[in-house]
Amino acid sequence: MSLPTPAGYYALDNHSVRTFLNDLPEMRAKLGGAPESWAVEEVGDGNLNLVFLVDGPDGSVCVKQSLPYVRAAGESWPLPLDRAFFEQSYYRAVGAHVEGLAPRFYHYQPELYAFVMERLSPHIILRRGLIEGRRYPHVAQHVGEFAARSTFATSDIGATIEEKAEWTASFAKNTSLIRITAEVVFSDPLSESPRNRWTRPELDGLARAFRSDSALKGAVADFGWRFLTTGQALIHGDLHTGSVMVTETDTKVMDPEFSFVGPIGYDVGAFLANLVMNYLAQPGHATAADDRREQADWVLDQVPVFWNTFKTRFLALWETSARGDAYPATMFAHPADQAVLAARREAFLDGVFADAVGYAAVKTIRRILGFAHNIDFEWIADPARRAPLENKAAQLARKFLLEPHSFRTPEDIVAGAKAI
Amino acid sequence: MSLPTPAGYYALDNHSVRTFLNDLPEMRAKLGGAPESWAVEEVGDGNLNLVFLVDGPDGSVCVKQSLPYVRAAGESWPLPLDRAFFEQSYYRAVGAHVEGLAPRFYHYQPELYAFVMERLSPHIILRRGLIEGRRYPHVAQHVGEFAARSTFATSDIGATIEEKAEWTASFAKNTSLIRITAEVVFSDPLSESPRNRWTRPELDGLARAFRSDSALKGAVADFGWRFLTTGQALIHGDLHTGSVMVTETDTKVMDPEFSFVGPIGYDVGAFLANLVMNYLAQPGHATAADDRREQADWVLDQVPVFWNTFKTRFLALWETSARGDAYPATMFAHPADQAVLAARREAFLDGVFADAVGYAAVKTIRRILGFAHNIDFEWIADPARRAPLENKAAQLARKFLLEPHSFRTPEDIVAGAKAI
Ligand SMILES: Nc1ncnc2c1ncn2[C@@H]1O[C@H](COP(=O)(O)OP(=O)(O)OP(=O)(O)O)[C@@H](O)[C@H]1O
Ligand SMILES: Nc1ncnc2c1ncn2[C@@H]1O[C@H](COP(=O)(O)OP(=O)(O)OP(=O)(O)O)[C@@H](O)[C@H]1O
Ligand SMILES: [Mg+2]
Ligand SMILES: [Mg+2]
Repeated sequence: MSLPTPAGYYALDNHSVRTFLNDLPEMRAKLGGAPESWAVEEVGDGNLNLVFLVDGPDGSVCVKQSLPYVRAAGESWPLPLDRAFFEQSYYRAVGAHVEGLAPRFYHYQPELYAFVMERLSPHIILRRGLIEGRRYPHVAQHVGEFAARSTFATSDIGATIEEKAEWTASFAKNTSLIRITAEVVFSDPLSESPRNRWTRPELDGLARAFRSDSALKGAVADFGWRFLTTGQALIHGDLHTGSVMVTETDTKVMDPEFSFVGPIGYDVGAFLANLVMNYLAQPGHATAADDRREQADWVLDQVPVFWNTFKTRFLALWETSARGDAYPATMFAHPADQAVLAARREAFLDGVFADAVGYAAVKTIRRILGFAHNIDFEWIADPARRAPLENKAAQLARKFLLEPHSFRTPEDIVAGAKAI
Repeated sequence: MSLPTPAGYYALDNHSVRTFLNDLPEMRAKLGGAPESWAVEEVGDGNLNLVFLVDGPDGSVCVKQSLPYVRAAGESWPLPLDRAFFEQSYYRAVGAHVEGLAPRFYHYQPELYAFVMERLSPHIILRRGLIEGRRYPHVAQHVGEFAARSTFATSDIGATIEEKAEWTASFAKNTSLIRITAEVVFSDPLSESPRNRWTRPELDGLARAFRSDSALKGAVADFGWRFLTTGQALIHGDLHTGSVMVTETDTKVMDPEFSFVGPIGYDVGAFLANLVMNYLAQPGHATAADDRREQADWVLDQVPVFWNTFKTRFLALWETSARGDAYPATMFAHPADQAVLAARREAFLDGVFADAVGYAAVKTIRRILGFAHNIDFEWIADPARRAPLENKAAQLARKFLLEPHSFRTPEDIVAGAKAI
């Protein structure tokens, strides 16, 4: 490894990951048997890190470790190791509040920037399942629950000033990934950047048009500013369908390495955007046997399920578990105050929705014109088939940003997606 | 001292402050002569801390030290010492950007929670000068400059993600004073709280009416939420006319112990509110010789001077010194983008103004119904004379909160204050 790393760090491999786990009595006990007998597989198909699945006779674990560079780009794009610290920190902060909706957290090894968690099995990545035409009857509800519980518990409504200050202070240091978001999500895709790519030459015109759409860039930059300056709750920071693993009945949200105290709408918008992109991509996965129309409709129907679950749970928690310093109970002690407080809560959720629509748009555009693309579209091998679908997604995103008043409810999103 | 304090801490007195300074070679040199020859006076007239003015034959300094309790309340209201750390941290962070507009910073002594700064002389507190009927031809411009320079330089427009993260992380820990603001500014004044006080019995009706004005409380709580969740820049946090010391020609902003990464409009609104309160209080200081009408008008005229200076300077810095990650130049590289970028800048400043109006209102109400009052009103000895003026201020504040669309420009504020 040519990039400098701190003392004690080494990148794990199929051999050393055994030694590492064997030296942790609880992990050794969980796996059972001898380290040589464990099955080890490195499955990191993502952009950034190493991920090992380790199966022993008695149980299994998953080890995730940071590399000193962006895996998808190689050593030419160095990246600090500390993202593993923030990822495990997030699991610890929200774990108790999202019981059953995230992998169980087992151990963090600071000098290796590696942590051990529950190995999810037979779960697959939600995005892959949706692309393959599978449906998950509970997933939208589960992710809505996750988003509501995790953000409520770490907001100024669900937590005290002192508790929230700890998260604000600690996660503010997650600057390497916050910078990546600011650049690859917000600024690069509508700028001239060597990191951008798109379906060429089919979408050359789109890329050019978007890059010279001043109003669109103004709207994206506004959301970029809001992203950097809104500290509503500890957010996951990357809550797309690639950060959710599923079975028919179970849902786990993972990969919270981009977490920081930011806008709640960013998490909500990430999931919305990725449902809509998957919907728009479905015709590209049609076969003679399955035109994917039903699948597409089912995916799009998850938009209101997700939002309504999020909203209902957030409001319910506000009723039962408000122990923070915002909207304090002392100020709304009279029965006559309840109607106004209820209206403020509704307005608050409307604001989260409006933010979510904007962030959803930004996160869609970046998947069409920026550095990291989605397999929803990438797996449509034929560019002539892919490009028009990508174009639809980009045009819908543009509408979200330039006509926000037309998208006030999840039903507006559904209608907009169908109309495009 | 009965409250527990960390090892090495002792409250300075007129004797020990000499030893402390004499042990600092630079301070000893600055003062000159022997410690016994120095004139020492403790002048802390504020609510929280000890302040010593020390004059030697060659120069003078000012020492400010935290006490482990709220000075205005006594040991029954304990308060962590670390506010001195944040105050000196703020001076260090913004000092270079507000050259000449803040006291020079000399030294911080961590275990004493004490720091040494320039002794301002013959400066007096702006609020006192205004109450005495004095005018300061440059002060509104100077404070506007201060607010613009300090917030721009520490915002995501003027600073990088990494720089701002340092301030966010460090100042997030200023929880004792952030909590005081959340409670005594935002929640107490419109709640039943034993800390509240008001001119009784004259304003009993007002207090009751405001406490049962659900819509008003909803608006205040919205701004409380924004205060806790908006991290636009490192703000002073207490920028009222009691935090500004002046001569005819010179202006220094001091007492930034409430600083944290918060909403820019909170600093702007604090100064606006205190100009307006001073304006409304002027008739209470009228004498046979001076009806104070001209003084009042002059004070109110400073509202547009202050805002216009703030806005002009902030925009000018944005043109010349944008090195942050928000609204990045790469996104607005085409000449055709400039009109949109200029419109986003205007919209941004409009947002700061709207925030400022809301925070100004909240900060006015708390001075009439909450714990800490302003001498602008308190020094009007006759309650029959004081109460109607306080009532005007409160009613104007209520309009700011419930009719925000009527207050879009500083001229709207001037007109509103004259009409009330
Ligand atoms: N706890 C787990 N159990 C089973 N498989 C897992 C687990 N965590 C991750 N994986 C597998 O490893 C892959 C990569 O994980 P993850 O997305 O966390 O890595 P990453 O490097 O952060 O990728 P990304 O580019 O999405 O940021 C997942 O797609 C999944 O297949
Ligand atoms: N650098 C200085 N030079 C001269 N006098 C000063 C200086 N700093 C403070 N003072 C004097 O000390 C008084 C108290 O200072 P300051 O407001 O900083 O204290 P405080 O305890 O934080 O008060 P509060 O927070 O209640 O306003 C000021 O009103 C001013 O008269
Ligand atoms: Mg990841
Ligand atoms: Mg003070």
